[in-house]
Order: sequence, then structure tokens, then C-alpha cells
Amino acid sequence: MAPGTLVHVGEERTEKPKITIIDYDKDNYQERVVETVEECFPFKDYPTISWINIDGIHQVDIIEKLGKHFGLHPLVMEDIVHTSQRPKMEDYDNYIYVVLKMLWFADDDTDVKAEQVSIILGHNFVLSFQELEGDTFNSVRERLRNSKGRIRTMRGDYLAYALLDSIVDNYFIIIERFGEIIEDLENKLIENPSPETLQNIHDLKKEMIYLRKSVWPLREVINGLERTESPLFQDTTFVFLKDVYDHTIQVAETVETYRDILSGILDVYLSSVSNKMNEVMKILTIIATIFIPLTFLAGMYGMNFSYMPELGWKWGYPAVWTINILIFISMYMYFRKKNWL
Amino acid sequence: MAPGTLVHVGEERTEKPKITIIDYDKDNYQERVVETVEECFPFKDYPTISWINIDGIHQVDIIEKLGKHFGLHPLVMEDIVHTSQRPKMEDYDNYIYVVLKMLWFADDDTDVKAEQVSIILGHNFVLSFQELEGDTFNSVRERLRNSKGRIRTMRGDYLAYALLDSIVDNYFIIIERFGEIIEDLENKLIENPSPETLQNIHDLKKEMIYLRKSVWPLREVINGLERTESPLFQDTTFVFLKDVYDHTIQVAETVETYRDILSGILDVYLSSVSNKMNEVMKILTIIATIFIPLTFLAGMYGMNFSYMPELGWKWGYPAVWTINILIFISMYMYFRKKNWL
Amino acid sequence: MAPGTLVHVGEERTEKPKITIIDYDKDNYQERVVETVEECFPFKDYPTISWINIDGIHQVDIIEKLGKHFGLHPLVMEDIVHTSQRPKMEDYDNYIYVVLKMLWFADDDTDVKAEQVSIILGHNFVLSFQELEGDTFNSVRERLRNSKGRIRTMRGDYLAYALLDSIVDNYFIIIERFGEIIEDLENKLIENPSPETLQNIHDLKKEMIYLRKSVWPLREVINGLERTESPLFQDTTFVFLKDVYDHTIQVAETVETYRDILSGILDVYLSSVSNKMNEVMKILTIIATIFIPLTFLAGMYGMNFSYMPELGWKWGYPAVWTINILIFISMYMYFRKKNWL
Amino acid sequence: MAPGTLVHVGEERTEKPKITIIDYDKDNYQERVVETVEECFPFKDYPTISWINIDGIHQVDIIEKLGKHFGLHPLVMEDIVHTSQRPKMEDYDNYIYVVLKMLWFADDDTDVKAEQVSIILGHNFVLSFQELEGDTFNSVRERLRNSKGRIRTMRGDYLAYALLDSIVDNYFIIIERFGEIIEDLENKLIENPSPETLQNIHDLKKEMIYLRKSVWPLREVINGLERTESPLFQDTTFVFLKDVYDHTIQVAETVETYRDILSGILDVYLSSVSNKMNEVMKILTIIATIFIPLTFLAGMYGMNFSYMPELGWKWGYPAVWTINILIFISMYMYFRKKNWL
Amino acid sequence: MAPGTLVHVGEERTEKPKITIIDYDKDNYQERVVETVEECFPFKDYPTISWINIDGIHQVDIIEKLGKHFGLHPLVMEDIVHTSQRPKMEDYDNYIYVVLKMLWFADDDTDVKAEQVSIILGHNFVLSFQELEGDTFNSVRERLRNSKGRIRTMRGDYLAYALLDSIVDNYFIIIERFGEIIEDLENKLIENPSPETLQNIHDLKKEMIYLRKSVWPLREVINGLERTESPLFQDTTFVFLKDVYDHTIQVAETVETYRDILSGILDVYLSSVSNKMNEVMKILTIIATIFIPLTFLAGMYGMNFSYMPELGWKWGYPAVWTINILIFISMYMYFRKKNWL
Repeated sequence: MAPGTLVHVGEERTEKPKITIIDYDKDNYQERVVETVEECFPFKDYPTISWINIDGIHQVDIIEKLGKHFGLHPLVMEDIVHTSQRPKMEDYDNYIYVVLKMLWFADDDTDVKAEQVSIILGHNFVLSFQELEGDTFNSVRERLRNSKGRIRTMRGDYLAYALLDSIVDNYFIIIERFGEIIEDLENKLIENPSPETLQNIHDLKKEMIYLRKSVWPLREVINGLERTESPLFQDTTFVFLKDVYDHTIQVAETVETYRDILSGILDVYLSSVSNKMNEVMKILTIIATIFIPLTFLAGMYGMNFSYMPELGWKWGYPAVWTINILIFISMYMYFRKKNWL
Repeated sequence: MAPGTLVHVGEERTEKPKITIIDYDKDNYQERVVETVEECFPFKDYPTISWINIDGIHQVDIIEKLGKHFGLHPLVMEDIVHTSQRPKMEDYDNYIYVVLKMLWFADDDTDVKAEQVSIILGHNFVLSFQELEGDTFNSVRERLRNSKGRIRTMRGDYLAYALLDSIVDNYFIIIERFGEIIEDLENKLIENPSPETLQNIHDLKKEMIYLRKSVWPLREVINGLERTESPLFQDTTFVFLKDVYDHTIQVAETVETYRDILSGILDVYLSSVSNKMNEVMKILTIIATIFIPLTFLAGMYGMNFSYMPELGWKWGYPAVWTINILIFISMYMYFRKKNWL
Repeated sequence: MAPGTLVHVGEERTEKPKITIIDYDKDNYQERVVETVEECFPFKDYPTISWINIDGIHQVDIIEKLGKHFGLHPLVMEDIVHTSQRPKMEDYDNYIYVVLKMLWFADDDTDVKAEQVSIILGHNFVLSFQELEGDTFNSVRERLRNSKGRIRTMRGDYLAYALLDSIVDNYFIIIERFGEIIEDLENKLIENPSPETLQNIHDLKKEMIYLRKSVWPLREVINGLERTESPLFQDTTFVFLKDVYDHTIQVAETVETYRDILSGILDVYLSSVSNKMNEVMKILTIIATIFIPLTFLAGMYGMNFSYMPELGWKWGYPAVWTINILIFISMYMYFRKKNWL
Repeated sequence: MAPGTLVHVGEERTEKPKITIIDYDKDNYQERVVETVEECFPFKDYPTISWINIDGIHQVDIIEKLGKHFGLHPLVMEDIVHTSQRPKMEDYDNYIYVVLKMLWFADDDTDVKAEQVSIILGHNFVLSFQELEGDTFNSVRERLRNSKGRIRTMRGDYLAYALLDSIVDNYFIIIERFGEIIEDLENKLIENPSPETLQNIHDLKKEMIYLRKSVWPLREVINGLERTESPLFQDTTFVFLKDVYDHTIQVAETVETYRDILSGILDVYLSSVSNKMNEVMKILTIIATIFIPLTFLAGMYGMNFSYMPELGWKWGYPAVWTINILIFISMYMYFRKKNWL
Repeated sequence: MAPGTLVHVGEERTEKPKITIIDYDKDNYQERVVETVEECFPFKDYPTISWINIDGIHQVDIIEKLGKHFGLHPLVMEDIVHTSQRPKMEDYDNYIYVVLKMLWFADDDTDVKAEQVSIILGHNFVLSFQELEGDTFNSVRERLRNSKGRIRTMRGDYLAYALLDSIVDNYFIIIERFGEIIEDLENKLIENPSPETLQNIHDLKKEMIYLRKSVWPLREVINGLERTESPLFQDTTFVFLKDVYDHTIQVAETVETYRDILSGILDVYLSSVSNKMNEVMKILTIIATIFIPLTFLAGMYGMNFSYMPELGWKWGYPAVWTINILIFISMYMYFRKKNWL
């Protein structure tokens, strides 16, 4: 395929993409769900800030029309619909393109799902593209609607920051949930390690590997935004970007910490298995080493030789029992000394 | 051997190298397979873009003639025919030399084969050298033929980019296939780990090591092209190179991810073996510890002492059975409590 | 939540925050505990150095009032009350914000607790915020009171340094305590490894991971202070910062060293378990391989065949004993040779 | 010892060092073996290129005389005779000093030997010092004699490059041989792992560690030469140095690859041992768990109680056999189900 | 404690510190042991080079007096008496402070002891502070006394270099000794691995960790001296510093190499234990699986059933022996085939 060809890569979907426009400045605010992408076009040149959010990127013609009108590079459009992008940030002189992963737990609460989110910051517009409805942006919408905080008084760069911030803040929820899962695992491990525990450790390790793939490049993304000299970013926004950057670092470090801890848990699990085997072996050894000599002795006096003087002795039989008990006691003492009992 | 001596290093081949010329500009297009290398010479100074592709580098005289006519440095010619090059990029003022690996699965679908591809970007020509016929360039040829996309309107740097892009895009297919193989392995592991699984893990790990050797240096290659100040590259092409660079990073990271996952799989495999051994030991221990004392008792009453009062008792025999059953039950309870049953 | 919203994140507390003011210059010194935060306000513009310390950050309105009066950025105030900050340093033109962790052992002496400390260095004031009463600053207070050393003759940057220094110096106590715990563990390991040892190793490894999270970023923090070009820092203070920096490096390296040693201890532990199992197996094998053949022989002569010539022999029975003793001795010699006894 | 004191460190040798002079320019060529070091002195100021090669550095007075005449720094002379140098490159304004390791297999073909080679590049002379006769320079001598390639038309920097190139090229032979040894090891591993295999893996790992010590610093050496601004190096030589540099990188990467593969082989070996133990355990368990209950039953009917009704039954004995066979079959079925047979 | 407070940290000592002064230039030389520190003071301003060496830093007042007279920063004095410094180099405009570790083997030859050495290089004096009498400086003293080499003709920077050089050279002795210990360990490992070996490996690994802590920062120290622009260093000295730097790198690399080798030895040890266990298991399995069926058979014919036709057969008893021998032989063949014998 020629580069810049728009092909949706990702889960097949059929629902109609939902286009929402929020247009605001300090004094005005309107929010609209539109049916056709063409309704978005006039917002490009409004002096107010327009945030156009698209839920659903599987209908590439919508992306294409919007992209062409807003002057996006074909490769940017290709990346928006190609859902396996590595988080990155690209500065095209008159707009900035950021792509990253929005994370959420699937229903069963242990499997993390990722959704690709693309954010375009232009002169007075912000475009955001998501794979699915439902996102972490509700708090941003609320603050816009109620003119809470400084968001309505700032420009589009602050809106883009607010969107990024809400995505990164959501990572903390994921991270905390994993913290709990890992703690549970550790407790289970001490109480009752099972082969299933091993599978859990392996699954968690894999989740961490995938989480890391989403989070690590994000550091460069935010760092890239911080260092950009694009006039789209105002000086007052940089301190907020620094804040998101710190959060990203913290998430990334926590993921690494969890990997270290999971490695430790694996070690403990493996040693537990070893210890259990050791215990099994000890029991076998104790029983066998005590009874094998006794059984041998009994076997000796079960032989049918004509001439076996002991057999005729009156105290022969009690003597065997006595010897047995002595062997038993001395073995018991030996294992006691060895700390096996 | 003196440096710059052309010696083909690689698999022995006998077929005649195939030389294809594609010459084009915005309005014209011709495609030709030529018999002798000399037929390529005039294309050097045409104002149109000429792409000369050689399938087969084992006849070094062809490379030498072509190289001399197009002004290649002897070391470049040496590298073209020496098929164990590490991917690299070299900027000779009037041309740029890129060498990298084209990857494909051998017939049995698990063994990756690599073919060395050299690309020379000159003022208005692109030379490409491959070990074998058959490549990933068909989509590029198609776009050239049908004047699809922007390729016919751009210069040779874009063609070189398109060739690189098609090779790197093909890596994703390799990577995806390995993803499936690894997933299969994980499933097999849970169901039924066997020593063969171990061999598979080891083989996959080795494939990853070799894949990494092809992919990691590629990042520097593309990065080198991005940063080159050569006039051969036009500004508009850099954004496309950035795109290939992102793909390379993604492939490299996925290879690392797979290595991590394979390490995890190995851990799971080793623990499974341990667990199985543990299970074997438990069964042995249960059987042995239950029956050894019973057998001892039977042995005792098999002794032939003249004076063994129990032997004369009427209830002696049933008593032994009763004791046996009691021992059996108490052992069973013990192992139950220990969670072995 | 909008960025810059003050929400206390951390352990729930109810006690009233304690506000202490120490105001001094070369000749004057006063120390006061005030009831309301408003009493601190006048100190902002005094020519003397004022150190305002707040023990307790759970009442966000206090932080907010103080922050607003002293001109702190909303994000700084948010970070002060959000107790999960990664150590960092931020240079806002007219003040410098440093946040780090103060560490101390909980009562049982093996579990490290962390308390977030924020330090604001302004033109002639230093603000410090802690989660709890009780800190490592007593030596600083003592030196201020008694005008010991150069502290009273220096400006606020030296006070900020002194606070940092006292926190970092305290890390050495933590580190030393861990050194002793690890040494204890090593001794126990050699004498008597137990599954509990494993749990101890795992717990210590986790402590090291968390310690590292507090210490590593601190290097960048101090380094950031050293390189700052803020006029708040006087040239004479940099040599002291360098000293703290060296201490931070030393603590960080010791943490790494401890991690390495703990890994080594884990290896020794695992091998000890393996060795013990080996010893158990040897005992079982020695007993079993000696007695199983003997028992077999006894079994043979316990058979009831009518025609078994040996049974009638006079020396049959002593012969069996002799054979048994010979088998026993040769087995003993064999195991001796194998170094099992 | 004072720095700059010449003491030979290395294997003791007694043979007389051999001094060879090759003096050439485009049109003239002479080759001489001289008896005394003084015969070399006049060559220092000849306009032709003189290559003085010393085989044997154990007679330090020769090195000292030569070094003094050619103006070498005492530390350079010390390094030449001290055979445990780490590969390095030093630029003394009027000459460049390079020291590296020449590698070759000892007779038994698995043990790599290293010989220190020092190369001094002066204005129109090249000095080379080796520990022993016999080297990788024969191809260079041949090209000089026969005026093959560009070597006779170039200056001393090209000769120095040619010597480096021949040493680095020889590394590939070592590397290839190790590749074969490792492949052999892998095959043996699958067929028949033995404790000896483990020793082989360990030895190879050690070889890799030592190989790495020779190769890694070489990258910096060649890189240093590439970046030198010494007038001793002509522009045309840099492209050749770049070529050697690529080779060095390739060798270094291959060594790393081999280390990774050897780690993988060790894992496979350890698992094989585990698997074998598992197999041993299974056989023991199968035999023991089948026969122990049977033996117990036989023991029961070997008891000598007066009142054991079964003993009198006509079908008692066949019944025991029948029960035995049933137990045997059901055990067999059980192990079959468990996949142990 | 206030920063800059002098408190001796280190082993308690009571002997009187020994102060030695060596004062020299090209033509003059005097060497003196003085009683009081005040006798050193006049040497500060002599035009000759004065080397004042203090053996014993536990009497802080001596250090304080000397430091004050020679204008040392309080933090430097604190570091001199605080014996747990990380090696570092600090450039105070009119003097340079270097602190590092002098290493030596304790009497039993396996435990490395470290002693902190501080060196102050001033305009025409060098101060050196050691914890104990006895050092590696004797060769330097000898060269000074005998005016051997260039040392008497150079300035204080060369003396400082000579002291550093003698300390670093001594590291090679430590390193070599460890090389021998490791080789011994490897040999013992092959011949007779014991749990004690494991302890040795662990101890050596720990020694390496501590050695590394002394050596790694030293690279930065020497590198810092090389890059310093202090007028205290003359151009001719830099080439000597480069030499020490190379030695430091070599020591550091060797320590890393030893760590790698020790890891390899640990792997071999663990596998040996595994292999031994395997061997033990095999013997047990062979004996048990051969004799258990035989014993069962003997048990069968030991039963007391009235009707057991085989018991009456004439060839019954020999038949059992024959069967036993057949079972024995077939088992033997089976184990032979399995390569267990």
C-alpha cells in the first residue's frame, strides 16, 4: 500500500462514529453532537476554541474528509486509523499530533484493554480521535461546561494538556489496581502456593510488559511537548506539562517496581515448591529408613532353614520386638537431631 | 585480500543475475529487463529517475562494471557482494549507500531467512542489489506503473524511501507470525509441557536474537538518513523517513517484548517440570509410607519363632487386618490434611 | 479534578496541624508556635530569614492560604498535599520547590516508613511541610538557637541545605540498620536456613526496591539544585550542596550493593535447600540399597517350596548372615568411595 | 618502579627478536631482516615509507634504543613491553600509538591465545611490535611486494590501516570457529547431555568473556582513529577506517550473541537434567507403587496365624494371583492416564 | 552535627599519628619525622615541593590545625576524617582534593582491607592522610631519595600522580590474587563440589561488590583530574594521568570479568549438585526396581496357602531363581540401554 493510504487496522466495528463538538471561549459555550463530518468544517476558523471529538475511527472516509479540511498530513491520517501506533508526538508546523493509549480494565477486572487516542492541537481547535465511545474526558467536559478552574480562560494548548492529563491520571487507577492484585498474590503465595499461582505471576508479568510498552514512550512524548518551540504552546502551559511528565515518570517507575516485585514473587514461589518437595522427601525417607531394616529382620526370621537356633529360644520373639523398638527409637532420635521432625 | 577486492561471500548460486530497469518521471514510464549490464549505463545521466534492480550478486564482475560506471567506492562494491553486512548507512558525497536485511519465512513457516539488500541513492538513479529474485518491492512497482500516490511526482529519494518502507513493513508480518507462534507455545505449555517445548523455546529465543541483530542497527540506519544533510534528500521526504523510523522502533521493541515473554515462558516451563516431579514424588511417598509399615507387620507374623503367642490367638489374624485398616485410614487422613490428596 | 485542586492524598489524620515559626538573622532569634496560619503572613517581607514549618498537611485550607500569600503556584500546593510525589525539584523564578521523603523505622525496627517533606525556598523565607510531627530537623533548630556554626550568618539557601542535609544524613542510619539486618540474615542462613528466611529475603528485597524509589530521584533533585542559576542560591552554598550530593550517591550505591548481596543470599539459600534435599536423598538411598537386596534374600529362604536343598544344610542359616554382612560391608565401602558417608 | 621503566611483563622467552624492515614507495621496494636495531635508525628520515616490524619484545633494550631514536614517550615504550594492555589508541602529536590483541587458536583448536601487537604510525614510518613470530600480516606483505591494490601508492596511515584490518579480519575466523563449536554443543545437548557438556558451556562462556575484553575496547580505538585530527591521517584513509570499525562492531555483536546463545544452552542443559531426573523418578515410582501393595498382600498370606481361613480355601492361591493381576492392570491404566508411560 | 564539624568516623585507634615531611627540589632533599603539627607550617610557603604525610587521622585536632593553616575548606577536613568516603575529586581553586581507597590483603590472604587515603595538591605542597602506618608509597619515597627518574625535576602535580599511581598499581596485586583464588575455586569445583564451595563463591562475589565500589568511582576521579583546568597541573603530567586512567579502567573491567566468571561458577556448582542428586536417584532406582519385583515373587511363594501346586514341584525352587536371574538381566539391559550404567 502507498504510504498515506487510509486503512483501518484494529477490531472490526460497525456502529456509526459519533462526532461531538464543544466550542467555547471565556464567555461562550456550546456543545453539539453532529451527524455529518461536514458540520465540523466551519469551526476551523472560528476565533473560539473548538474541540471536535470523534468516537470511532473505523469509517476512514470521515477521518479523511476531516483531515483534509483541517490540513493534516496523509501520514497523520494513516496513523490515526492504524490502531497499533507506539505513543509519539509530531510537530507539523501548524499543528501538533499526539497519539497515545487510553487504558481501562475489562469487565473481569484483571485484563487491561488499550484504546488508541489521537489528539491534534491546531491554532484554535483540538481534534481527538478514539476507537470507542466512553473515555476519561468527562471531568474535562464538566470543567468546560461549568467554567470551573482556568480551562475556559486558556487556549487550545491547555485543553490538549487537560486531555492528556486525564488519560495519564487514569493510569494511576490501573497501577493501583495492579498493586492490589500483586499484594493478593503475595498473600496467597505464603498461605498456599499452587501451579495456578505460577500462571497468575506469568500473566501479570505479561501485563506489565504491555503496560510498559504504553507508558515508556509516553515520557518522550510529553518531554517532546515540553521542549517544543511551537507557538501553539503558551509559556504558562509548560508548568502543567511538567506536571504530567512527572506523573508519567511515576507510572513508568511503578511499572518497573512491579516487575521487580513479580520477579521476587516468582523466586519465592519456586523456592516454596522446592521446599515442599523437600518435605515430601523427608517423610518418605523417615518412613522408609525406619521400616526397611525392621522388615529385613522380620524377613530373616521368616526363613525356613531347619537349623535356626534363635527360633527355638523362648525370648527370641520378644527380643525381635525389643530390637525393633530400639532401632525405631534410635532412628527417631537421629532424625530429631537432624531437625527433620 | 586487499580491501576493495570483490569476492562474493554467501550461498553459492549459478543462475544468471536478472537486471531490471524502471525509468520514470511524472509523465513517462518504461520497464525493461536487460541482458547485459552495459545497457544500464546510459541511464546514469538521464534527467528521469532510473531504478536499476539486480537480482543476484554472485557474479561480481557485473557489480564491478556497474559500480565503476556509477562511481561507487570499491569498499561499497565489496560490501554489496559480502552478504554478512550489518545494516548500515554511508553518505558518500554524491550518493548514499544503505544495506539492510530483507526477511521472509522459509517454507516450513518457522524459520526466518534473511537476504541482504543494498540500495544506492544517486542524483537521479536508485540501484538496488538483492541475493535472490523475489522481494517485497512489488507494491512499489505497482504504484510506479499505475502512477498511484505521489511516487511518480517525487524524486529518487522518495523511491529509496519506498523501498525501505516496503522492507520494514514486511518485518511486521514476521513479527506477527512470531506472536502467533509464541501464543501457541503458551497454550501448549499449560496443557502439556514436554521436553520438546523446551527445544521450541530455545529455538524461538535464538530466532529473536538473530532478528534483533537485523532490526536494532536499522534504527541507526534510518536515523542516519533522517539527520543526513545530503542534498539528495528533499525536505518533504523526511516526514516519511520519520514514519519508517517509528516502524523500526516498533519492530525492535516488539522483538524485545517477545524475548521477555519467552523468558517468562521458560520460567513457567521449568516450574511445571518441578511441579510434575513434586506430584510424582507425592504418589510414591503416599504409596510407600502407607504400605511399608503394613508390610513390616505382615513380615513380623511371618516369622517362624516357636513361641509367638499371638499366632495361636483366634482373633490374631482379623486383628492384624484391623490394625492395617486403621493405619491405612490414619495415613489417608494425614495426607488429606497435608493437602496431598 | 481540575489541576491545581487541593486534595489531601495520604493517611487520614485528625490532629490540628502545628505551625512553628523561627525567625533569625545574625543577631536576633525568635521561635514561636502560632495558632492560625495568618500569623505567618507578616514574615514574608521581613528582612530576617523566616523558617515556617507546618506539621500536618491534611487541612488543605491552611496550605492554600499560606500558599496564596507566599505566591505559590497551584500545582505546587497540589503536590504539597499529595503525599505520593516522586522526589523532585522545581525552579519557579522567585522560589524553589523541593519535595522528598523523610525515612524512619517503624517501632518494630524492620519496616521503613516514609513521610513526604516539601521545602520552599523563597527570597528570605523557607517553608517546610511535613505529614507528621517529629522530624530530623532538631539538630538544625539547635544550631539556630545556639548560633552554632555558620548557619545564623548565612541566608535561607543555607537553611534549606541544612534541612536537606539532615534528611539525607538520616538515610545513613536506615542504610546502616539494613546492613546489620542483612548480616544477621547471612549468619542465620549458614546456621539454619528455613522457609522463613526466604520470606525475610523477599521482604528485604522489597524494602530495597522502595528505598531505591526514594533515593534515586534525589540525586537528580540535588543535582538540579547544584546547577540552578537561581539568584536564591549563593555561591558559597554550592560546595555544601555538592557534599549532600555525594551523600546521596553513596546512599544510592549502598542500596544497589544491598540488592546485589540479597540476590547472592537468595542463591545461597536456594542451594542450601538443594543440598539438604540431596542429603535426604542420600540417606534414603543408602538405607534402601543396603537393605533391599538383604530383604530379598531373606524372602527367598522364606519360600515354602518342598524341595529347597539349602534349607536342610546345617550352615545355611549362618551362611545367609555371612552373605548379608558381606553385602553390607561392600555397600558401605562403595558409598564411602563415593564420598556419601 | 618509576613510570616509564621498561620491564617486560608476559611469558618468558629466550629467542632473539627478529627485526624486519620493509621500505617502499610507489616505485621502489626493499625488504630486509637486520641483525641489530641500529640498522633501522636511518629509515626514520627517508622520504619513503618504512615499516619496521619487531617479533619479540622481551629484550627491552632493543625497544628502548628504537623508541629513543624514533622519539617515543617512555610510557609508550613501557606499554609496548607490558603485554597486558587493554586495547587503546593514543595520539602523541608526531606519532600515533595503537595497541591491540592478535588472536589465534592454539593447536587443540578450542583455546584462543592472544598476542599483544603495538603499532606506531609516524610521519613516514610504521613500527609494529609483536610478542612472537608468525602473524596475520602476510597478506599485507604480499600486496606490498607485488604492488597489488593501492597500498604502494598510499602513505603510512594506509599501511597502519592495512595491519589493523588484517588483525580484525582474523577475528572473524575465530568467531566463525566458535560458531561451529557452539552449534556442535547444541547438537550434543539434544542427543546426550552430560556433566562434561556443562564444563564445555562454562569454558566457552569464559572464552567469550575474554574475547569481549579484547574486542569491546577496540571499537573505541578505531573510533578514536576515525575522529583524530592528526595530520598523519589522510582524508582518503578515513573511509577505510570506517570499514574496519564496522567489522569491529560486527565481531563485538557476534560475541554478545554467542553469550546470549550460551546462556540459552545452559538453560536447556539444566532443564534436560531436570527432565531426566523426572524420568528416573517416574520409573522408580511406577515400579514401587505397583509392587509394594502386591508384596504387602503376599506378606499377609505368609503370616503364620493358626486361624487364617483363606489359607485353607482351594481357590485362595489363584485368587491372590488374580487380585495381583487386577492391581497391576489398574495401576498400569492409572499411569497411562497420567501420561507416564 | 553542623556540616564541617570534624568527627573521626572509623575504627577506634590510640597510637599517636606520625607526621613525616619530605621536602625536595631538583638539587635538595630532606626527610623528617616531626613531633608536632606546627613544625609543618613553615613548609607551606617554601619554593621547594613539600610532601607532608600523616599516618593516623583519629586525632582530629591535628587535621584541623593543619587544615586551617593550609587553607582547607571545613568540608574537606570533615571528609578527611570521615573514613567512609566514596572516592572523589574536588577542585578548590587553590588546591585539589582527592580521596580514594588503598587496598591490601589482611593476614589470612583472602579478605581485602581498605584504608582511606586523602591527597591534597597545593601550589608547592602535597598533603596525604592515611588511617594507618604502612602504605604503597615506599617506591615513591625511594625514587625521591635517590633522585631516580624524573620525579625530583617535576612539580607537586607529578608527586600527586606518583602517589595515585602507586595506589592503583597495588590494585593489580589484589586483582591477580583474586584471579588465583577464583582459579583454585574452579579446580576444586570440578574435583569435589561441597556446600563450602558455595559459601566461598558467595564470599568472593561480595568481595567483588566491595572492590567495585572502590574502583568504579575512581575512574571518574582520575578522569576529573585529566579534564581539570587547574593551573596546578602541568601539561606534561596529563599523559601520566592518562596512564593511571587506563590502569583504573583495566582494574574495573577485570572486577566485572570476575563477577561474570563467578556467576558462571555458581551455575556450574548448582548443576553439579543437580547432577549428583540425579546420580543418587539413579542408584536408588536401579536397586529398587531390580529387587522389588524379585522380593514380590519370593513373597508369593512364602505364602502359606494349603493348595499351592508350584510348591510341590521339584523344579519350582530352581525355576524361581531362574526367573529372578532373567528379571535381573533384562533390567540390567534396560538400564544399560537407558545409559544409566
